[in-house]
Amino acid sequence: METNPSDKPVKGKSPIQSKVSRYTKPDDTLVNVSGIQIGGSDIVIIAGPCAVESREQLFSTSRSVKAGGAAILRGGAFKPRSSPYNFQGMGEEGLKLLSEIRKETGLPIVTEVMDTRQVELVASYADMLQIGSRNMQNYPLLKEVGMSKKPVLLKRGMMATVEEFLMAAEYILSQGNGQIVLCERGIRTFETSTRNTLDLSAVPMLKRLTHLPVIIDPSHGTGLRWMVPPMAKASIAVGADGLIMEVHYKPEEALCDGFQSLSLDEFDLLMADMKKIAKAIGREIAVPKHATV
Amino acid sequence: METNPSDKPVKGKSPIQSKVSRYTKPDDTLVNVSGIQIGGSDIVIIAGPCAVESREQLFSTSRSVKAGGAAILRGGAFKPRSSPYNFQGMGEEGLKLLSEIRKETGLPIVTEVMDTRQVELVASYADMLQIGSRNMQNYPLLKEVGMSKKPVLLKRGMMATVEEFLMAAEYILSQGNGQIVLCERGIRTFETSTRNTLDLSAVPMLKRLTHLPVIIDPSHGTGLRWMVPPMAKASIAVGADGLIMEVHYKPEEALCDGFQSLSLDEFDLLMADMKKIAKAIGREIAVPKHATV
Amino acid sequence: METNPSDKPVKGKSPIQSKVSRYTKPDDTLVNVSGIQIGGSDIVIIAGPCAVESREQLFSTSRSVKAGGAAILRGGAFKPRSSPYNFQGMGEEGLKLLSEIRKETGLPIVTEVMDTRQVELVASYADMLQIGSRNMQNYPLLKEVGMSKKPVLLKRGMMATVEEFLMAAEYILSQGNGQIVLCERGIRTFETSTRNTLDLSAVPMLKRLTHLPVIIDPSHGTGLRWMVPPMAKASIAVGADGLIMEVHYKPEEALCDGFQSLSLDEFDLLMADMKKIAKAIGREIAVPKHATV
Amino acid sequence: METNPSDKPVKGKSPIQSKVSRYTKPDDTLVNVSGIQIGGSDIVIIAGPCAVESREQLFSTSRSVKAGGAAILRGGAFKPRSSPYNFQGMGEEGLKLLSEIRKETGLPIVTEVMDTRQVELVASYADMLQIGSRNMQNYPLLKEVGMSKKPVLLKRGMMATVEEFLMAAEYILSQGNGQIVLCERGIRTFETSTRNTLDLSAVPMLKRLTHLPVIIDPSHGTGLRWMVPPMAKASIAVGADGLIMEVHYKPEEALCDGFQSLSLDEFDLLMADMKKIAKAIGREIAVPKHATV
Repeated sequence: METNPSDKPVKGKSPIQSKVSRYTKPDDTLVNVSGIQIGGSDIVIIAGPCAVESREQLFSTSRSVKAGGAAILRGGAFKPRSSPYNFQGMGEEGLKLLSEIRKETGLPIVTEVMDTRQVELVASYADMLQIGSRNMQNYPLLKEVGMSKKPVLLKRGMMATVEEFLMAAEYILSQGNGQIVLCERGIRTFETSTRNTLDLSAVPMLKRLTHLPVIIDPSHGTGLRWMVPPMAKASIAVGADGLIMEVHYKPEEALCDGFQSLSLDEFDLLMADMKKIAKAIGREIAVPKHATV
Repeated sequence: METNPSDKPVKGKSPIQSKVSRYTKPDDTLVNVSGIQIGGSDIVIIAGPCAVESREQLFSTSRSVKAGGAAILRGGAFKPRSSPYNFQGMGEEGLKLLSEIRKETGLPIVTEVMDTRQVELVASYADMLQIGSRNMQNYPLLKEVGMSKKPVLLKRGMMATVEEFLMAAEYILSQGNGQIVLCERGIRTFETSTRNTLDLSAVPMLKRLTHLPVIIDPSHGTGLRWMVPPMAKASIAVGADGLIMEVHYKPEEALCDGFQSLSLDEFDLLMADMKKIAKAIGREIAVPKHATV
Repeated sequence: METNPSDKPVKGKSPIQSKVSRYTKPDDTLVNVSGIQIGGSDIVIIAGPCAVESREQLFSTSRSVKAGGAAILRGGAFKPRSSPYNFQGMGEEGLKLLSEIRKETGLPIVTEVMDTRQVELVASYADMLQIGSRNMQNYPLLKEVGMSKKPVLLKRGMMATVEEFLMAAEYILSQGNGQIVLCERGIRTFETSTRNTLDLSAVPMLKRLTHLPVIIDPSHGTGLRWMVPPMAKASIAVGADGLIMEVHYKPEEALCDGFQSLSLDEFDLLMADMKKIAKAIGREIAVPKHATV
Repeated sequence: METNPSDKPVKGKSPIQSKVSRYTKPDDTLVNVSGIQIGGSDIVIIAGPCAVESREQLFSTSRSVKAGGAAILRGGAFKPRSSPYNFQGMGEEGLKLLSEIRKETGLPIVTEVMDTRQVELVASYADMLQIGSRNMQNYPLLKEVGMSKKPVLLKRGMMATVEEFLMAAEYILSQGNGQIVLCERGIRTFETSTRNTLDLSAVPMLKRLTHLPVIIDPSHGTGLRWMVPPMAKASIAVGADGLIMEVHYKPEEALCDGFQSLSLDEFDLLMADMKKIAKAIGREIAVPKHATV
């Protein structure tokens, strides 16, 4: 029989000797986001708009995704945009709106932090801190959220190997914060018909190498609204612990990523389909908490 | 709302004006491989060894994959290998063994053809002609199988865009042969932990653009035996019309691709899991034909 | 000091044990194309149209590139095109025109062969057989030109590693033909502003690993006429043994690749600049032979 | 003639309407680094160690690169490393050593800044602020150096398109700082024999699209010491305005990137060769300033 170097999960020994490794900690890590557990048997759906744009947009979308079964709410207040002249997010005003709708719906909030100077501010509003793909190797930022007490959603860089992704998580863990969820969101390849190439093989690869939960972002991974449902279903079949999806009450009016955001009706249909796939593999979709008002 | 050029399925107009396009032919094409239909409601499993190595290896593996539920048998007689010093396949002797086991099991045979001069020979034994990924843009070969009456399994080049893949199929169609099954088998990216990056988004993209059936090869797509089952299940959830998988009765002794071949037991387990996913999306796994002895 | 796996030229041992390797044959191979030597001190310029389109186009362009200093004439009679509906070349008629202009100008001819069945025909007209990038892993074709007595111009596949490129040359060498020139012509990457990414680092890498000459195709490598001159100059500075360039007497009317073909004036200017760079590194541009009429 | 969308320099209109664009400002920008001009006729060589490791290492290397003809000194005090357990740089202590050797040699200093909170500190020591490739889309950091008065060396992300690279520069320009030098340092591709693929075509592409100077980093671009000289020579031939290279007095003992650092002797030899190429294209290598003690 031929020998094959790629039969070994990753080259080099670093992840194996590190805190992210299953060799170091064989049991699955459960990440607790204000009462919602990611990494256990239940599959967690995170949904919401790309960016917080207005009270009406956020509240309307949030109420609907909760009704549809999302367990965590997403929404950006600080947005990393390719052009300095694009909408950069509502900033703290957006964080306040997120906080308000959390109170009403009971949904924990995940939102992005881009600057070491803002970690404290964002952590004071959010239940989970998101590190975006452009910042996956922003080491000062990784260290800063590593010193925070909040769980972290770490997105894979669009250019990062699985090994580099794990080393980025190691930066956070090395500061004492082990509540990390890894998110595959598409890598950059030569193919141009999709925005990125969603690498679903990263799920079994990461689950083998690390004890951390792994979720999928089919919205950024494909960049195409109509492609989100089939890729979301495949994500569940491949073993992901959750999904994060962009949903907008009026996608055609969205200030960012409207072309990849599901409408509320599309989200409802997809939830029904995902429940069937989850059942076929012996799992369930996590149920949202009640508001504790 | 922002405008996004990638919202259009492909750039340029060529596929839209071509015979492969859904614009030209909206209804799904059914490909008939000696009685097994690909592209209909039932999902077709193609299984067998990478290469025909010996009577014992082929016959033992073939009987088992049929018992496990495979509807078509795969096995290479002419093998494209990176090195001229590697095993190049058994040639016509391998074709004869394939023909013999077809008679016994009733399973139709798919096998690769690499040379325009061999199309007639291979077509005299096989039920379906495979064009390998390295030959996806071998235009004389595409034209030659286009003039054959046999159905064609066309594998995506590891460097080919979806648009180029469709243009390769168009070469076959332009010669009058419309019995073509497209096969995604992994693309080459910067990621090195897997052999290739299996692009499952190609399934919904291709199903939208063309009427031809689309199947997945998770063996070459990942290069890792343990990763074949999760990716096979995801392939069904994403909407593939079938799978082609390498199975070997003794993977550790295989002359080629042993590290990515399933054992017979692993294949049986996977078949059971795939049936559940198929059911969850309202489809079924195609049942093999009886031998017509 | 850190250890770095990439400090070793290539992974695996195969090229080192093979006939293409400098370990096997330390001295540079000189490839003799009907009297023009590639791989020695002189840098060889190959120029001409993408495809032979007509007597006037071929003859006019050929006379000019000879006057400008090209030592070998290029021109395609059989063209591999992405679409079956694009111009596919003039076929044998084109070969005859190439043969005629060779007689007049004395320039040896390099032209592509795509089909194992055509090797004998093309070899009966051409001085050098070109294997195009889409056929770099067309193993029956590599073997067939390996059995020919003609020198071979082997183009790198647009997604082939350096190691795979060398193994393709090994296929030719394994059949007894060692007169091979390797040609880097751009690889496929995520960057879309150029047609391909011309990988000039392949020149020193290949020169270190193999004794075969290495040339550059800046026309396909960039796909942009205005970018050919700077990349051609860089190719000489980096140590290439020659260049192959598309030149057309009326680029705006070319049936293929007009947007990347130099005009006759641009070619003349570039030749003057290349001579200066060659001199700065202690080499010269090879002088074309006289017609032997 | 065929039409070709890639004949247009970049897709979309944003760079054309932006401050980085040649449409907005046709004349070349000259960047003044404490008296050394980048972007004019003279080619500027920036050299020095990857990281400041010790007084002896920095001072010995700096004196030698000045003697060899480098006009600007590079050296990292804050190092972005893939692993949190690798040497992270000497921090402010390193900045002080850089400042000391500047006083002795008269060489301006370029050094990396990674954190918005450190921009003021680093700017108080350095003559030029480097934004590393991992931070090319760290927008808060880009804005912060955009508000600084120091010139900026912006490195291309390893998976950034030319268009995204220009938009990153636009972030800096949009804050009022137009003293920006762009640096191509290798992109990530499927090829693994080099650390990255140095994209020399980015030089003519960027020079066409923007008025900003463009330099090359052949050390990171190749990751192989022996490949730095040929790629450096090609960089000059292709039209780069400068080079930045890693040089170490004892490469085999370097704490980072030793395998890609030139020795002092190799640097001297390369400088002599580069002068010849520069002369052949009508340019010169910039002469270092005298120390003003």
